[in-house]
Amino acid sequence: MSVKKDQTQIGILGGGQLARMLCLKAHEAGWEPHVLSPSPEDPAAQVTALWHKGSIDNRTDLSHFFKNVDIVTFESEFCDVNVIQSVARENKKVTVAPSLQAIGILQDRLSQKESLVQCGLPTSRFFEVSSYQDLQKLYSQFPKGCVLKRRRFGYDGYGTFVLKSKKDLQNLNPDVFELLGGFIVEEYIPFKRELAIMGFRNASGDLVTFPLSETYQENARCLWVKGPIFHNKALFLKKKLKKYMESLNYVGAMALELFDTGSDLIVNEVAPRVHNSGHYSLDGLTIDQFALHLRAIVGIPLKSPKLLLGGYAMYNLLGQSKKAPKLSFSSEAHLHWYGKKENRPGRKMGHINHVSSDPDKSLKILKKSAKEFQL
Amino acid sequence: MSVKKDQTQIGILGGGQLARMLCLKAHEAGWEPHVLSPSPEDPAAQVTALWHKGSIDNRTDLSHFFKNVDIVTFESEFCDVNVIQSVARENKKVTVAPSLQAIGILQDRLSQKESLVQCGLPTSRFFEVSSYQDLQKLYSQFPKGCVLKRRRFGYDGYGTFVLKSKKDLQNLNPDVFELLGGFIVEEYIPFKRELAIMGFRNASGDLVTFPLSETYQENARCLWVKGPIFHNKALFLKKKLKKYMESLNYVGAMALELFDTGSDLIVNEVAPRVHNSGHYSLDGLTIDQFALHLRAIVGIPLKSPKLLLGGYAMYNLLGQSKKAPKLSFSSEAHLHWYGKKENRPGRKMGHINHVSSDPDKSLKILKKSAKEFQL
Repeated sequence: MSVKKDQTQIGILGGGQLARMLCLKAHEAGWEPHVLSPSPEDPAAQVTALWHKGSIDNRTDLSHFFKNVDIVTFESEFCDVNVIQSVARENKKVTVAPSLQAIGILQDRLSQKESLVQCGLPTSRFFEVSSYQDLQKLYSQFPKGCVLKRRRFGYDGYGTFVLKSKKDLQNLNPDVFELLGGFIVEEYIPFKRELAIMGFRNASGDLVTFPLSETYQENARCLWVKGPIFHNKALFLKKKLKKYMESLNYVGAMALELFDTGSDLIVNEVAPRVHNSGHYSLDGLTIDQFALHLRAIVGIPLKSPKLLLGGYAMYNLLGQSKKAPKLSFSSEAHLHWYGKKENRPGRKMGHINHVSSDPDKSLKILKKSAKEFQL
Repeated sequence: MSVKKDQTQIGILGGGQLARMLCLKAHEAGWEPHVLSPSPEDPAAQVTALWHKGSIDNRTDLSHFFKNVDIVTFESEFCDVNVIQSVARENKKVTVAPSLQAIGILQDRLSQKESLVQCGLPTSRFFEVSSYQDLQKLYSQFPKGCVLKRRRFGYDGYGTFVLKSKKDLQNLNPDVFELLGGFIVEEYIPFKRELAIMGFRNASGDLVTFPLSETYQENARCLWVKGPIFHNKALFLKKKLKKYMESLNYVGAMALELFDTGSDLIVNEVAPRVHNSGHYSLDGLTIDQFALHLRAIVGIPLKSPKLLLGGYAMYNLLGQSKKAPKLSFSSEAHLHWYGKKENRPGRKMGHINHVSSDPDKSLKILKKSAKEFQL
C-alpha cells in the first residue's frame, strides 16, 4: 500500500528486537508501524501487517519506504546517513527523528567524543588514530593502558581492543587499520561497575530521564541490568545529559553508557536509540522506553516515568547453542521473546524482567529463572 | 504459508479488539498469532504478519486456517459450533480451547442457565419461552418484572428486553419471536451495582482468579470498571466459579457478570473468553487476562495475578460520531487503542487504564482524561 492512512504512520529502519518492541508499543497507542528489513522472519516483520522488504542502505528501498510513512526512526545508528539524507530531501513531509545530523555525529566515535567534550560531559581522554605507528607513538600517553575503538560500526565489543600492556600492543594485528578503517584510542578507565542512564526528548523540548541503572556485561555483551542505583554524581549527570540532548536538538531516546569509578561517573559511549539498559521499563516503570521514544518522535507530551515498585531487574536470554530454544513460563519472571528463527551462541533471543521492592532480590529471581530456559 | 513453525502457532477466530490484544501478548511471549477475519483492516489483522482472510463460519476458510495452527481459540462465543467441530475432526492435532462443547453450552442462554443451576451458582429464575402467548402466561410468575433474552447472539443489550410492567409487555412487538428465534425469560433482579469476576484454567486443572471488579454500564454497554471490590460473598463465589470451570472441564478465560443485591452476588451472564471487565489487568496486575488466557490454552503453568498497587480503573473510549477520532496523550491514563478504521457512536474504539492506591481516584482521573479525546 502506498496511500497514507489517518493514523500516524511510523517507519522503523531495521527489523530486530528493538524495532519489534517499538512496533508492539506503536500498536498499543494506535500508531501504525512500518518496518523496512530484509526478511519476513525478522523479529519486527512478524508483528505488523506493514512490513516492507528491503535494505535500510538501499536508495530505492528507502524511497519507497519514505512514501508510506509520516515519521522515520532508527533501531540502530549504523546506517548510511548520506543515502537516507538524500531520500529525506525528496520527501520533505516525512520527519526523521532523531535528526540525521545527530545520528551522523553519534555514529562516529570521534565526533561523538568531541560532542561530549564540547558539552562538558565527563569522558576519557582520546585521540584519533589511523595507523599502527600513530598508536605506538600515542601509547606512552596512557600509563593505565588504553582502548582502541573503531570509529564506526563497533558494537557489543566488535572493533574494540583493550591494550593494558605493551604486550597487548605488540599482539595487536597492525592490519586492523587496513581492515577496519579509522579508529580512536582512549584512556583505559578502571571502573567499579558499569551504569547507564536514558533520556527522552521531543521537538518542543519536553525532556524526561530514567533512573540510573547498573549494567553487567559478559564477553562485552549486556547480561543483566538492575536499579535504581543511587550515586552522588547522578543529579549532575542528568543535568549534563539534558544539556547534551538540547545542544544536539535531539529528538527521541538516548542512552549513556557509564563507568562508575566510585567518585565519578564517566561517559563511555552514547547510543542514539532505545537501549538494552532500558528493557526493564516494560514492567518496572509507569511508562516504558519504547512508548516514550514514540511519544518523543510523534511530538506529543512525554510522561515522566515513575517506579512501580522500589526496584527492578532485567536479564538477557542469550543463545548458547544452535538448537531451537525451549522457553520457560514457570517462573515469576516476565518474558519478552524476540521470535528469532535462528539460535546462536551469544545471540540476544529475549529478556526477562522482574519488579520488586529490592533490585537484588529481583536479579536473584531472574538468574534462577534464566536457568530454566534451554538456549 | 501452510507449514507449521517451531514456535506454537495460535489461531484466533475473529479480528476485533480482543483478538488484537491477544495477538500483542502472543508476540510478547513468542507464540505466533494467526488471525481469521474478513478484512485486513480489522484491529487484529493489523498487528500480525499471519492474517488469514476469511469468515469464522465458512468451512473452507476454517479448513485452511486449521492447517496453519496448533491451537484454535475464540474472541467471541457467537460462532457456528457444528461447522468448527467438523473441521476440528479433520484436524485432530489442533487443540480447540475452550472446548466446542463448552462454547456450545455457553453460547445458548438456556443451556448456560441450566449449567449454572446444575453447578449451584446463584442465578435468577428463568423459563424457556418461544412465543408471545407463552410469555403472557409466564409473566404473572414475575411480580418484580422480568427480562426477555434472546437465546443466541445477544450482546451489549441487543436481543434483550426488560419488562418491568404489563405496559412494557403490551409494548413488546410479538414478532420478535419470529424475527429473533428462541428466548428465555428470567426474573428481573433489582441490583445495587453490577460486578464481574474472571477465572483462568488450563488443561492440567491449574486455576487462578481475578479480584472482584465493579462494572458500570451505560445504554447496556460497559463504560467503566474499577476495583478491587470487597464483598462478603466474594470467596463463596470464587469457589463456585472454580467448581463451575472444573465441571465444564473448561480451558481458557471465563468471565461472570454479576448483580450485587447488597446481601448476595447473583450470576447474570457467563462470557467464555477474555472480557471487557478484565482490560484493567494490562496495567493493574502482575499478569494480564490476555497473557493468562494464552498460558491456559497453550497448557503451561498459570501465574497468580497480584495487584501492582492498591486499586485500578478502566474507562472505555466509545465512539460519539463518525468523524476520525482525535486521541489524547497528555493525561496520566495508559491508552490502549484498537486501530478501528471507522468511528461510530457507541463503538468501542479503545480504553484507558489507571492504577493507584485508590480505585475511585483512578476512575476520577480516567473520567477527566476521557474528556480530552474527541470521539
